[in-house]
Amino acid sequence: MTYRAPLKDMLFVMNELAGLEAVSQLPGFEEATPDTVQAVLEEAARFNEQVVAPLNRIGDTDPSSWKDGEVRTTPGFRDAFRQFGEGGWQGVLHPAEFGGQGLPKLVATPCNEMLNTANLSFALCPLLTDGAIEALLTAGTEAQRSTFLPKLISGEWTGTMNLTEPQAGSDLAAVRTRAEPQGDGTFKLFGTKIFITYGEHDMAKNIVHLVLARTPDAPEGVKGISLFIVPKFLVNADGSLGARNDVHCVSIEHKLGIKASPTAVLQFGDHGGAIGTLVGEENRGLEYMFIMMNAARFSVGMQGIAVSERAYQQAAAYARERVQSRPVDGSARQAVTIVHHPDIRRMLMTMRALTEGARAVAYVGAAASDAAHNHPDADERARNQAFYEFLVPVIKGWSTEMSIDVTSLGVQVHGGMGFIEETGAAQHYRDARILPIYEGTTAIQANDLVGRKTLRDGGAVARDILSRIAETEAALSGHPAVRRQLARGREALADVVAFVVENAKADPNAVFAGSVPYLRLCGIVFSGWQMARALLAAEARRGDDPSFYDAKIATAQFYAQHLLPQATALRDAIVEGAASVNALTEDQF
Amino acid sequence: MTYRAPLKDMLFVMNELAGLEAVSQLPGFEEATPDTVQAVLEEAARFNEQVVAPLNRIGDTDPSSWKDGEVRTTPGFRDAFRQFGEGGWQGVLHPAEFGGQGLPKLVATPCNEMLNTANLSFALCPLLTDGAIEALLTAGTEAQRSTFLPKLISGEWTGTMNLTEPQAGSDLAAVRTRAEPQGDGTFKLFGTKIFITYGEHDMAKNIVHLVLARTPDAPEGVKGISLFIVPKFLVNADGSLGARNDVHCVSIEHKLGIKASPTAVLQFGDHGGAIGTLVGEENRGLEYMFIMMNAARFSVGMQGIAVSERAYQQAAAYARERVQSRPVDGSARQAVTIVHHPDIRRMLMTMRALTEGARAVAYVGAAASDAAHNHPDADERARNQAFYEFLVPVIKGWSTEMSIDVTSLGVQVHGGMGFIEETGAAQHYRDARILPIYEGTTAIQANDLVGRKTLRDGGAVARDILSRIAETEAALSGHPAVRRQLARGREALADVVAFVVENAKADPNAVFAGSVPYLRLCGIVFSGWQMARALLAAEARRGDDPSFYDAKIATAQFYAQHLLPQATALRDAIVEGAASVNALTEDQF
Repeated sequence: MTYRAPLKDMLFVMNELAGLEAVSQLPGFEEATPDTVQAVLEEAARFNEQVVAPLNRIGDTDPSSWKDGEVRTTPGFRDAFRQFGEGGWQGVLHPAEFGGQGLPKLVATPCNEMLNTANLSFALCPLLTDGAIEALLTAGTEAQRSTFLPKLISGEWTGTMNLTEPQAGSDLAAVRTRAEPQGDGTFKLFGTKIFITYGEHDMAKNIVHLVLARTPDAPEGVKGISLFIVPKFLVNADGSLGARNDVHCVSIEHKLGIKASPTAVLQFGDHGGAIGTLVGEENRGLEYMFIMMNAARFSVGMQGIAVSERAYQQAAAYARERVQSRPVDGSARQAVTIVHHPDIRRMLMTMRALTEGARAVAYVGAAASDAAHNHPDADERARNQAFYEFLVPVIKGWSTEMSIDVTSLGVQVHGGMGFIEETGAAQHYRDARILPIYEGTTAIQANDLVGRKTLRDGGAVARDILSRIAETEAALSGHPAVRRQLARGREALADVVAFVVENAKADPNAVFAGSVPYLRLCGIVFSGWQMARALLAAEARRGDDPSFYDAKIATAQFYAQHLLPQATALRDAIVEGAASVNALTEDQF
Repeated sequence: MTYRAPLKDMLFVMNELAGLEAVSQLPGFEEATPDTVQAVLEEAARFNEQVVAPLNRIGDTDPSSWKDGEVRTTPGFRDAFRQFGEGGWQGVLHPAEFGGQGLPKLVATPCNEMLNTANLSFALCPLLTDGAIEALLTAGTEAQRSTFLPKLISGEWTGTMNLTEPQAGSDLAAVRTRAEPQGDGTFKLFGTKIFITYGEHDMAKNIVHLVLARTPDAPEGVKGISLFIVPKFLVNADGSLGARNDVHCVSIEHKLGIKASPTAVLQFGDHGGAIGTLVGEENRGLEYMFIMMNAARFSVGMQGIAVSERAYQQAAAYARERVQSRPVDGSARQAVTIVHHPDIRRMLMTMRALTEGARAVAYVGAAASDAAHNHPDADERARNQAFYEFLVPVIKGWSTEMSIDVTSLGVQVHGGMGFIEETGAAQHYRDARILPIYEGTTAIQANDLVGRKTLRDGGAVARDILSRIAETEAALSGHPAVRRQLARGREALADVVAFVVENAKADPNAVFAGSVPYLRLCGIVFSGWQMARALLAAEARRGDDPSFYDAKIATAQFYAQHLLPQATALRDAIVEGAASVNALTEDQF
């Protein structure tokens, strides 16, 4: 088996750190009993281990291919996706009203993680479909919802997000795709979209494109963007498929990784106009897109954790098998498995500590999202919403940035074999590289963290998190080394929050010079905080399963000793180092 | 042009930091006048920019291929290699007696860097040939030297290093290839070698394999390894080529990167025995191989710097051209080139600071090697040799580890385009990934740094370097921020050297748990030291060329503020964090 779902680790985080019990007591989540949750996770593990994971390697060697406007996906993907739909996996999170299971995000998130760990390329199709579902739930008309949601949730159809255009990149203000009203409630769309994940494929009967475009009299910039549904096949009143719409895949990209996932260039309206309908109100497209993007950003963060878990499992398995060289402490006269060599251990511990830390932050975020939606108390909802929103750019940015390091270490543990493609370690390294780029680069997440998440409330949410970290420190009296490093991390972060709040207006270039380091600092300190909580929880439960909980304790200590110390270095760079970032003129580069 | 050799930067480092003038006054280097050096570098720049660099991309898309035991290299490589040989580039460093130019390593090193920046895959062939030349110069008989050296130095033939075997990996004690004496002074070799760079190709008339093998009565382990010359074609007494030898390429690897460079599996002796001759004395093969490896390790370190330079140039060019988004400081109402965005600047500054820092350390190392060989005073030779030997694992390990980060940033600067293979940024990211692995992984470099370089003399050389760093600090009174960070870095390193020396015997697992972090710490602090020296030199010369020297000053400040602070974090991890590295049992991973 190439992947074994870490159910025990997941349940530990869900129960001990993210508060599954409290989540399952929220109104609307009555079905999320411990038994149901356990059953859902076990079935997800089985499906992803046995059906999805074995397709990961072939997705790399026999990727999606384009011919005459059609995309053939990797052999096996189509059948696996049918099983995915039939198993109800697209609907874990979504309302029962449209065929979903209506379970908490805290339960959907580990399912999501398993799917992504099994196969990043495969998982992208449901990931984008989730975004389309969210947008329609938020802003779709009743007719749009009843037409599209059941089919999307059942996996019969899939969804896409069409933002990027060749000249625009991340800058949505520059979107040029036109939407011309036809007087009958429909629009005709004209334009080119690039980097459209699963923009064309053969795994579903229809593809529901959600497209950003401008109506004729729309204002300039982001305030003039509207959101449209443009299905690949038009849908008749009875829900059956009608004519082929004028949206065509003119090519797919030749990429470094996630090769099984087709990245399409879509041409809208080259043959008379692609017919679409408006979602929500005109000129509010960016707002709706942000709903999709926030869901997608969280999910891409999970992809970082997922590929890190996969790389870790593969490296650990190799390290336990590969025999080479005698131990440095002279404890054996013959060569031993490399897991006995301290630097291999250091690499494996780094991989698992980063992965576990990021997972804990993400699951805690998922629980906050559940409370933000379903808590009966409005203040609690608002507090949780603010916490969740603060975490989203950190989960997206940090989990994906760290996945570059983790997958790189995964190659390194394999030595020369890691560089040989057949080994498979290199695939994770290539696949992971897109994660800090798509759904908003790390810099864009960091801009969000600085602007909307820190400055807008004058650092209030950030300071609230800092005080919660201080509470955890207070409980660490039995672990002075961990407490000291966590306190240093918190103090470093407090300095940086103050720096950001105080200087953003007067010297934005100085603050944004440190925006990505600030995001990294949040990622490191929040993970360190959750790992410290994990240590306390593991200590309390140790007697139940000493081997499991001792590993949790050691990993938390490793995190505090090896990763938290970076916080102070980042603080110095941010607070003292802005001038040198901005010192060079354009031609000096 | 895809690559422009940074001659001005190189000459700055050679003159101001590495002491070219002093090197050129050493006995034997009389020819290395400023005019000659300038002319050699300019010609190297022209050749590599115009002939070698344009072959880099095609080497990735049309790599080496194997058929029926023969390897066809990328179209254009063969002709470029002919020009390389005819231009005398293989011989820059080697003795005039055998057709070389006999120039200092300090002059050969930038030539080397240019070749590698132009084309990492192409440069590997000369890199390995250099190793073979070094071994024969050290241990070859007169006949071997006169037979092989002129052909290797002229580029008519090439050389290889055959160490690794399938079961042995980095563990040379496990080498099994047999060498049976034939009674006529020759041996017959039998065995399989893997990962042999340019082990088979079509760029030269003969390939001179240097092979580690065991004679029948050799002791076990590394003390029973001998070194043999096994040419692809036997060489007649008159120097002409004779029969095809029994060494055959049975396959080449399918790799993540450096795809144009064939990585061969070589089978020795499947048809009666591959005929070889002993180099030097029996059972001293490891010692000779270390000579080759030390040269090769330095050169692989240069590869890290080289690919970083290439990634930087490509990213900086893209950042100056790509227009996207308005500036955060509101200084323009329309989208600007992305080089104006602070996080793009931070990434570019990180790339150039890391690259320039590592280059400075490597060139300073090259100058030390020159003095170690040619200084008239024996004490000076010994002192420089010790300094150089201390630096080699750091140059190899640090320059290659940092190249992973630099090439990753190079992808990130390109955003989504970076993930598209046609852009070329991803190639550097893939190519770089082998560098911390081959010629000894970073862990192996770190073992060398701890064992041979630090413990053997009780930390004496390390402390000598620390006191030289303190001297630089004393000159930084005008730059308190840089001085403070350099001092902190030096203190962190001093703590770690003491920790290593004090604990290695009693607790080797604790020390080796921190060996790679120790190597990284050396890399960061030594680079920071050289960057601080660069700052002082640039300040002194500023009037000559303010734009150039101001950029040097800003880059040095950036290094001190953004990279040196990591030193303290590494210190904490090494000194306080060993227990958690070694805490888990094998089955807990």
